[in-house]
Amino acid sequence: MSPYERKQHDGVVNDVVWHHATVTHQDRVKQKGQTPVVLWFTGLSGSGKSTIANAVESLLLAKGKHSYLLDGDNVRHGLNKDLGFSDADRVENIRRIGEVAKLFVDSGSIVLTAFISPFIVDRQQVRDLLAPGQFLEVFVDTPLDVCEARDPKGLYKKARAGEIAHFTGIDSAYEAPSKPEIHVKTAQASIDECAVQIVAQLEALGYLRGDK
Amino acid sequence: MSPYERKQHDGVVNDVVWHHATVTHQDRVKQKGQTPVVLWFTGLSGSGKSTIANAVESLLLAKGKHSYLLDGDNVRHGLNKDLGFSDADRVENIRRIGEVAKLFVDSGSIVLTAFISPFIVDRQQVRDLLAPGQFLEVFVDTPLDVCEARDPKGLYKKARAGEIAHFTGIDSAYEAPSKPEIHVKTAQASIDECAVQIVAQLEALGYLRGDK
Repeated sequence: MSPYERKQHDGVVNDVVWHHATVTHQDRVKQKGQTPVVLWFTGLSGSGKSTIANAVESLLLAKGKHSYLLDGDNVRHGLNKDLGFSDADRVENIRRIGEVAKLFVDSGSIVLTAFISPFIVDRQQVRDLLAPGQFLEVFVDTPLDVCEARDPKGLYKKARAGEIAHFTGIDSAYEAPSKPEIHVKTAQASIDECAVQIVAQLEALGYLRGDK
Repeated sequence: MSPYERKQHDGVVNDVVWHHATVTHQDRVKQKGQTPVVLWFTGLSGSGKSTIANAVESLLLAKGKHSYLLDGDNVRHGLNKDLGFSDADRVENIRRIGEVAKLFVDSGSIVLTAFISPFIVDRQQVRDLLAPGQFLEVFVDTPLDVCEARDPKGLYKKARAGEIAHFTGIDSAYEAPSKPEIHVKTAQASIDECAVQIVAQLEALGYLRGDK
């Protein structure tokens, strides 16, 4: 189902009536041989969201599937560079990411997003933007102590030192998904195992076929 | 060339050092067999931007190419629904469309946009976001009297009646591109002829190959 109603582009030009079919969402699904969906990765900083999402993309590419990853690298410095970290900006940040994910779904892509997105209400807002079945919550479930021991960007250290305020897991809540569609535990499985598990679930649910 | 620098997703998990290749822009180009680019359609209301862009998409799909169209239908009611028509909002509207177009280019797509975008400075702003060769201005050149005679949405009538202020071509300027990469004249060629002309130029410029 296309998330967008598209207008008919019919009319009269040079006294000739023309009717132009637009490329439909179904055309894009057929071309790409997959069922477009948002894989919304959520988890603590350092939980492995981006890394697993990248590994999933590599597996999807090997299967000839078309995907795209939205994360801090390509969103925070571009579309959302005008936003800070106030509550209002946090909500707007997630809203825009959701709307862009929806455009990618409309275009036929499998979209992966990798943002901490700690609040249930924000994730629900994105789910509500999309049609049923077009949003899968992927909970990258890694205990705080494991994330803090990894601390790949040194952010936990800074947060503990009081140099970063409102840091998720330290002095700001992380609201875990209660019923994520996909649940991986990186303290018990390797990155590759988690990625394989996610792709297997996509396959089982029919998303890697165009005729789901 | 990818418009984004991507971080290396290497690190230590479970005492194992892992190195994960991300799917690169070049991988996406190779997969889709095309050189990603923004086709930025500009022209008066009623000039035929959306219709021609739709026809171009149909031709590209028939050639197995992957494209997506950003226009009022899928942007104004979604990502940019918080924006009005003030000068500041107009600039922000085009900025966000440019940033989203850049994401689609990064994903490997040929992106078409169909917005009046009357001001040179706004179009230049988007061009500056992208690497050289990733932005092609497509001037849909239709005389005002022809657009007004077509008036597919009845907007010129309303503007003449004073019901819409700042309407491009009536009481707000349209700054035509001085050196558009592609220039079509709908008063002298049919929609299909214009679309064929655009695709022929893309082909001649190498955009329909992955090894441009």
